[in-house]
Amino acid sequence: MHPDRLFPADPGVRGIARRLYEAVRYAPIVSPHGHVDPRMLAEDTPFPHATALFVQPDHYVTRILHSAGIGLAELGVGAPPLPGDRARHAWRLLCSHWHLFRGTPVRYWLESELADVFDVRERPSAATADALYDTIGAQLTQPSHRPRALLERFGIEFLATTDDPADALEHHAALAGLGTRVVPTFRPDRYLEPAQPGWRDAVERLGVAADADVGSYKGYVAALEARRQTFLEHGAVSADHSHADAIAEPLDDTEAERLYADALAGTLRPEGATAFRRHMMFEMARMSCDDGLVLTLHPGIRRNHHPGTLAAFGPDSGHDIPTAVEFTRALQPLLARFGTHPNLHLVLFTVDATVFSREIAPLAGFYPSVYAGVPWWFLDNPGAIRSFQESVTEIAGFTRLSGFIDDTRAFCSIPARHDMARRLDAAHLAGLVAAHRLDEEEAADTLRALVVDQPRKVFKL
Amino acid sequence: MHPDRLFPADPGVRGIARRLYEAVRYAPIVSPHGHVDPRMLAEDTPFPHATALFVQPDHYVTRILHSAGIGLAELGVGAPPLPGDRARHAWRLLCSHWHLFRGTPVRYWLESELADVFDVRERPSAATADALYDTIGAQLTQPSHRPRALLERFGIEFLATTDDPADALEHHAALAGLGTRVVPTFRPDRYLEPAQPGWRDAVERLGVAADADVGSYKGYVAALEARRQTFLEHGAVSADHSHADAIAEPLDDTEAERLYADALAGTLRPEGATAFRRHMMFEMARMSCDDGLVLTLHPGIRRNHHPGTLAAFGPDSGHDIPTAVEFTRALQPLLARFGTHPNLHLVLFTVDATVFSREIAPLAGFYPSVYAGVPWWFLDNPGAIRSFQESVTEIAGFTRLSGFIDDTRAFCSIPARHDMARRLDAAHLAGLVAAHRLDEEEAADTLRALVVDQPRKVFKL
Amino acid sequence: MHPDRLFPADPGVRGIARRLYEAVRYAPIVSPHGHVDPRMLAEDTPFPHATALFVQPDHYVTRILHSAGIGLAELGVGAPPLPGDRARHAWRLLCSHWHLFRGTPVRYWLESELADVFDVRERPSAATADALYDTIGAQLTQPSHRPRALLERFGIEFLATTDDPADALEHHAALAGLGTRVVPTFRPDRYLEPAQPGWRDAVERLGVAADADVGSYKGYVAALEARRQTFLEHGAVSADHSHADAIAEPLDDTEAERLYADALAGTLRPEGATAFRRHMMFEMARMSCDDGLVLTLHPGIRRNHHPGTLAAFGPDSGHDIPTAVEFTRALQPLLARFGTHPNLHLVLFTVDATVFSREIAPLAGFYPSVYAGVPWWFLDNPGAIRSFQESVTEIAGFTRLSGFIDDTRAFCSIPARHDMARRLDAAHLAGLVAAHRLDEEEAADTLRALVVDQPRKVFKL
Repeated sequence: MHPDRLFPADPGVRGIARRLYEAVRYAPIVSPHGHVDPRMLAEDTPFPHATALFVQPDHYVTRILHSAGIGLAELGVGAPPLPGDRARHAWRLLCSHWHLFRGTPVRYWLESELADVFDVRERPSAATADALYDTIGAQLTQPSHRPRALLERFGIEFLATTDDPADALEHHAALAGLGTRVVPTFRPDRYLEPAQPGWRDAVERLGVAADADVGSYKGYVAALEARRQTFLEHGAVSADHSHADAIAEPLDDTEAERLYADALAGTLRPEGATAFRRHMMFEMARMSCDDGLVLTLHPGIRRNHHPGTLAAFGPDSGHDIPTAVEFTRALQPLLARFGTHPNLHLVLFTVDATVFSREIAPLAGFYPSVYAGVPWWFLDNPGAIRSFQESVTEIAGFTRLSGFIDDTRAFCSIPARHDMARRLDAAHLAGLVAAHRLDEEEAADTLRALVVDQPRKVFKL
Repeated sequence: MHPDRLFPADPGVRGIARRLYEAVRYAPIVSPHGHVDPRMLAEDTPFPHATALFVQPDHYVTRILHSAGIGLAELGVGAPPLPGDRARHAWRLLCSHWHLFRGTPVRYWLESELADVFDVRERPSAATADALYDTIGAQLTQPSHRPRALLERFGIEFLATTDDPADALEHHAALAGLGTRVVPTFRPDRYLEPAQPGWRDAVERLGVAADADVGSYKGYVAALEARRQTFLEHGAVSADHSHADAIAEPLDDTEAERLYADALAGTLRPEGATAFRRHMMFEMARMSCDDGLVLTLHPGIRRNHHPGTLAAFGPDSGHDIPTAVEFTRALQPLLARFGTHPNLHLVLFTVDATVFSREIAPLAGFYPSVYAGVPWWFLDNPGAIRSFQESVTEIAGFTRLSGFIDDTRAFCSIPARHDMARRLDAAHLAGLVAAHRLDEEEAADTLRALVVDQPRKVFKL
Repeated sequence: MHPDRLFPADPGVRGIARRLYEAVRYAPIVSPHGHVDPRMLAEDTPFPHATALFVQPDHYVTRILHSAGIGLAELGVGAPPLPGDRARHAWRLLCSHWHLFRGTPVRYWLESELADVFDVRERPSAATADALYDTIGAQLTQPSHRPRALLERFGIEFLATTDDPADALEHHAALAGLGTRVVPTFRPDRYLEPAQPGWRDAVERLGVAADADVGSYKGYVAALEARRQTFLEHGAVSADHSHADAIAEPLDDTEAERLYADALAGTLRPEGATAFRRHMMFEMARMSCDDGLVLTLHPGIRRNHHPGTLAAFGPDSGHDIPTAVEFTRALQPLLARFGTHPNLHLVLFTVDATVFSREIAPLAGFYPSVYAGVPWWFLDNPGAIRSFQESVTEIAGFTRLSGFIDDTRAFCSIPARHDMARRLDAAHLAGLVAAHRLDEEEAADTLRALVVDQPRKVFKL
């Protein structure tokens, strides 16, 4: 990996970027949102092979292979770690299709991971696949490459996982004494959508977990509040939400109770389910004001676009597709009520880049509760990040940003992703210095704030 | 301020930009749309202090301070000039939060103003706040820093204010002999929206101002026409419009009369009010064809997003938030009727950058009446301007642009804003020269046209 | 024309771009979609004058002249080649308004054409207009400048025209032995929209051409299938579609039959016509799976925005205006059924740049059938292409792109357009090399694939 990768081409600007980057290169990693499996860390079992680490859990990787006609079954998507031969075969598929990833951040992360975690500098290809597989496999059997050893080596100060409100959180409890603070995130989507299959069963499990009677709307709300408390006791700092839209619109209690009763009875119509969900988003903001959990929001995804793939491989298998998003009108009732509440931190994420300058930056540039979530998922790439930097910071400044969020399912990519973000932030700030809009000293201070202070402040660490 | 600020980093391109910029650096300022208070110029009273000049009237500044948790009351938003101690306190708040503005054009403008208007080169901070306040205060008592002296010093050739159709325009009359041509702009929004509170009273005032009987739809239209005439007699060149959408759709006379009667009677339903407003937009275009006032349009703002702030501080207090905009279908009926009318100049502004290449440039690249308004408000920053330049001029060329519009409420920022625009236009054109798409001589000619000829042509000066 | 035009300004990056470009500079041209008139090639008649070649057929040129107030009649829009004096006058109008085109790709293409095809290096202007007209005219009488000679000289390996399904295809038949493969494209829009005037007559002509009874829905479908077969026999590789939206939603047979019968009877309501059209889009995808024709889609255009111009000059006269586009929900039913079908190649084009990263890249980055169409029409310019490159390839890689599509009506602009695309692709890849994201060797391989392999693969050549 070239030491100047991702820096601007102009030698003068590159020099500034290099200096800025060096000062934060080894700063601790704060990761307030992602999808690392807490059980993996709690049990600290060695990873079985390169495929279980780099291919199977990472829909960033498998969706691109699928687009080239490779079946997800061959790649072990949605399955437990593949047995030996099939794992090696899947790895060969990745390596022999390496050219598919040219120009994508996935390739950039994978190369960084191979180099930094496994000291592998050869390019993956059909010819090198087996040797790489064996090299990585050998290292994975060593204590140095077990999950907790990597967690420490990566310099991760804080790591939030994403968890079901009914989860027992026993893995987080087991991780309590670790050097890295590993905490759960309250992700209640399924409990707020009566139209989803399995809602009633889920709510019953929630009642059991909370030891509450969910037979009434009041009991259901109490159960959610109780589980949030349990999450808080386990160190949780945020609640995370993703629905079809961002609308948060309160109903009066009688109406909410009526819709809840209909939902339990199985007689709630789709419009009612939508109204109930939007009411509950408003309620979640109210709860955040009460208990202090940061509220993160990332609407506008058509989940499981391809039914055949969902049926065979389950959700999160690479075919969630973005749609247009709207925040200005959707959040108006919520912000009218809670927008200046000192306890509310509302972080807005999007995979629709059009709302960066149109809605997110203007909202974050007025409401003290609103923060602009950095580009993630489809937008976690140099081009989109540059466009985010050039639009959001011009309107809202640097102090209204969330700080970098890796949102990863690929454990080993965490340092590579944060490193990429630091390089791109250094590059952007170097551009402002070169254009004589900031002193280099200010740029250095801003970069440090983005990397360390801002996520700590926004996520109340 | 560095002489090369905002220029491209590459030394070769920077050299071209510098040469291009130097040729227009001191060109006169044409400001066809903004929010300078004509009374301030007519009375030529000294500004009381730095806070009244830089903080209180400028929602660009106060919204960012508010986003950091500073109350708008402390900043004197929506209030008359603050008394001494409170004014000094507000100024200290600005200076001690200077880092909030890093990377924003607001900081760029403020620094330019401090340097160019007050010869202040120290960076504002908690430590320097008092000294700066006193330095500026001392200068404000001098004749050199009274409003008209600054107006002359700024080299403003033409300045349009924004005014209520019922305004007596006595300040503009008083300014008639000035070196700078200061003219009113006809801004009839409130008179076209029967659903807005106070519409009926406003219409009555309009009738009084126009000496017309607004008891009938015909009288109401006649009153609007008469006031436009009065504005024209006071030098007005344009009528400015901002509604929730850009739809202009004519009704037949009977229907318009019926809706107007219902509106006066207080029985008009919301759909009717919307239909009436859209009809009136069509009428405004018709009037523009008749009397020649340029029609400027900037739809798609959710005004007064936070009701608590509206109640306490009034409108224009920093929480107008953009929404998605649509022009192609919305303006089709208007352009079908008037799009090739020689008298119509229709300037389309937006704070939704997605319509630049999708709708505005294609419309301006066909209809001789349509001009692409430059980025303003949230989009008046280097990143958005670059994106505008790269998208609109590729589709419609440079001759379909409005020329720069400062839209400012901050009097002293006018030269800084125009200077920023000239630098960015020079930078963009230098890029075209470096890519061998234009000769440097053509680029120089184009820049001169953008700065001087284009606004004169578009606004019929 | 400068040899380094369109390359990045930084000397290091420019050097890389130059090397990359040189390797594909003379690669054959593959043009899978455009609007060249097959009759022109079949008859190989000399072009009468510069105006018939550069002005009359090219709405890219005439719309910009129109926006400056020049009447389309003077330019010969929608008319046969203008007679001598009027042709010279139209040419003078173009030359004396040359400055209107500054900064647009139209100017870039025109200058390239003048230099490369006519060895003209003087800038068009009022002063040079007549001399240029005569120089070009003299060359047009030579065998070297007849259509087929130019086709060969341009190095066009494959050229698809755009044709009516009822077309007899006699010109394509006559071109069968040519060095360049010239094939038709199946463009059935008008047959799928019962709400369009003339639909019934068109369907009858279709029946005649297919020798099928279109009195029933089944016969109508069979006629479409039969004509597709005929097109395939004439070498067609794709079917091209452009409707107001991209929705493809199947009806059951009974409902489709009912709507079809109502359409024939003239009693179909607008909602029914829309439902029928959306059903037929689904059917077209089904047929593509059956017969292998590539399906290209470019929705979201408000055709013929200005009725007066339509009445006087016909369609395609420069006032088709883009609107917002949606693919994610619109194509979900189609992709649920056919998205992984090995025969389906679905190329998504847009003139709404917001869907590049939001919808097209995520779809193409999962579905093996979906390809991201490169920017065209309003977006076929350096700024939009850069934005496409920076957004789509980061998400879907380079292997999911369509390869360059010129979509031209201006025959002589084909090599200039492809050359521009090659330069911009080289520039983009050079940037990736400079940022150490690709080796130069990989970049060279990628560029070759984009120029030659990718269009061959996507369009099944």
